[in-house]
Amino acid sequence: MVPEVARVSVPGHVTGCFSVHRDPDPQIAGSRGAGITLTDGATVVVDRTGSRDLELDGTKTTMASVEHVLATLDVEPAVQVETAVPVGAGFGISGAVALGVALGANAVYACGHTENDLVAIAHAAEVEASTGLGDVVAQARGGAPIRREPGAPPHGTLDGIPAGGRIEYVTFGELSTAAVIGGDTGAINDAGAAALRTILDDPTLSAFMSASRTFAREAALLTPSVERAIEHVVDAGGEATMAMLGDTVVALGTGLSDAGYEPAACSIAHAGVQIEAGSGYFS
Amino acid sequence: MVPEVARVSVPGHVTGCFSVHRDPDPQIAGSRGAGITLTDGATVVVDRTGSRDLELDGTKTTMASVEHVLATLDVEPAVQVETAVPVGAGFGISGAVALGVALGANAVYACGHTENDLVAIAHAAEVEASTGLGDVVAQARGGAPIRREPGAPPHGTLDGIPAGGRIEYVTFGELSTAAVIGGDTGAINDAGAAALRTILDDPTLSAFMSASRTFAREAALLTPSVERAIEHVVDAGGEATMAMLGDTVVALGTGLSDAGYEPAACSIAHAGVQIEAGSGYFS
Repeated sequence: MVPEVARVSVPGHVTGCFSVHRDPDPQIAGSRGAGITLTDGATVVVDRTGSRDLELDGTKTTMASVEHVLATLDVEPAVQVETAVPVGAGFGISGAVALGVALGANAVYACGHTENDLVAIAHAAEVEASTGLGDVVAQARGGAPIRREPGAPPHGTLDGIPAGGRIEYVTFGELSTAAVIGGDTGAINDAGAAALRTILDDPTLSAFMSASRTFAREAALLTPSVERAIEHVVDAGGEATMAMLGDTVVALGTGLSDAGYEPAACSIAHAGVQIEAGSGYFS
Repeated sequence: MVPEVARVSVPGHVTGCFSVHRDPDPQIAGSRGAGITLTDGATVVVDRTGSRDLELDGTKTTMASVEHVLATLDVEPAVQVETAVPVGAGFGISGAVALGVALGANAVYACGHTENDLVAIAHAAEVEASTGLGDVVAQARGGAPIRREPGAPPHGTLDGIPAGGRIEYVTFGELSTAAVIGGDTGAINDAGAAALRTILDDPTLSAFMSASRTFAREAALLTPSVERAIEHVVDAGGEATMAMLGDTVVALGTGLSDAGYEPAACSIAHAGVQIEAGSGYFS
C-alpha cells in the first residue's frame, strides 16, 4: 500500500574543510573533505494529495535544489519543511531538503528507487543549484563523514571518524555558498587537500577541529565574528571551527558555553536520513 | 583524553538472501545480498583496565571473530557483551561483537583508525572465523542494506531499501553458518543472484520479503519450523522470511502476532554501529 504522506528526518551537516571538484556530470562533481552531521537538521513532509508547493518553516518559498529533484522524479507534491537551524548559515539545509524530498517523494509516488539512486538525484540537484557539493552524501550517512572521493554513489567514497558527542554552535549571519564555490578555488583546494590528509592520519574529532581551523585560515574564509569566537573557545581550552559556508562557529562539548557564549546545542547524529513511521514505512 | 572504557551499540542483522564470494583476501571475500538491520542487537563494552577476557551475557566464552580483531589491533582488553537476541540464530551477533570490539578498542587504545578501517578489520575477522560474510558491513551501515558488491571497504559496495518499521521474530533453534558457507554453494549462489536482481528492480521491503522466501526455498535452506511459520504469516496476509542462517522467522509489522505466534518485536535500525556517550565520545 503506497502512503499519501511521508515524513523524512535529515541531519544537519557542517563541513569543516573541503576541496572543490568540478565535472560536467553533476553526479561526479562534488567535494572531498570532512564534516559532522547534527541531530539539528530538517524534517521534510511530502504529501501527494496537496497542491505543488514548498513551505519552509511556515512560509511559502522556492528552493532550486528541490525544483531539480521534483523535475527528475517528475512529480508535483506539496512539501512542508521544518528546520532546527538557520538556512544559509552552513548547516546544509538545502541539501537536507533536497534529500528529504527525494526519499519522501519516492515513498509516496512508489518511484522504485534505491537509497543510492535517491542520494545521487539529490546530490546532482544540489550541484546544479550551486548550493552545495558534499552535504547530501554526508547527510545520507550520518556520523562524522569523511568524503574521500567526491560525488554521489557509485562515484564518491565515504569514510568516517569513529566518534560522536555534544556539539554547540552560534550563528552570526549568512554566507553565499554559490559565491565561494563558483569563484577561484585554488587556495581552498590546496588547504582542503592538506586538511584531509591530516584528518586521515589522525581520524579524531580533535584533529578534525584543528585541521579545519587551519583550513579556514589558509583558505581565507574566516569571518571576523567566527575568528574571534574560535579564539575565545580555544583560549578557554576547547575546540571550535567554522561551519563551511556560513557565518557560524561550532564547538565540541561545552566549548562555546565555557567561553561565555549562549550557544544552541545538539549532538553528532548517529543516523543519516531516515523515513519515519506512518509514512510508507513498509513500502 | 583517551577513555578507559568504551560502550558500543551494534544493530542485529538478518540476511534474507545472499550469494557467496570466496577470495584468498578476507577483506575481498564476502557476499552479495540483502537484509535488514535490527534495533535488537548487541552492546559491547571494551575496558582497557580489565584483564583480557570475553563475557557474553554474563558467561565467560571465546569468539573466534573477536580473537582475530584483537590480534589485528594487538590489544588485550576486557570485553563484556550483552545481546538482545540469541547467538547462532541468524541475527549476526558474531559480526556485531567483532565490529563493536573493533570500534571500542580503537577508542580506548587510541589506535587511530577510520571507521572504514575498523569495518574492514571486523569483516576480515568474521570471514576468517567462518561465522559470516556480510553482517559486518551491513551492521556498520544500518537500515535495510543491499550488498551490491561483496567485501569490506573499499572493495564492497552498499545500497539500501529506503524503508523501515516494526519487525517481529521467532527463533526455533540454531544453525551453523560455517557448515553452509563452507559447503557446496552452487544452488545458493544461483538463487541469491536471482533474488538480488528482483530486489534491485523493486527495492521495497515487500519485494525483499518475497524474493527472500523464494531464495530460501530454491537454496534448500528452509527448516520445517520456519517453512510452517512463513506459511502461517502469509496465510494471515503478512510478509515473512527466514533469517540466514538461523532457525528463525522474521516478519514485517505484526505479521507473526497476526498469525497467532508470540514473537519478540523490534524495529529496523536507523543507525549503524555507534559509540555511545561516556566512551571516548570526543576522541
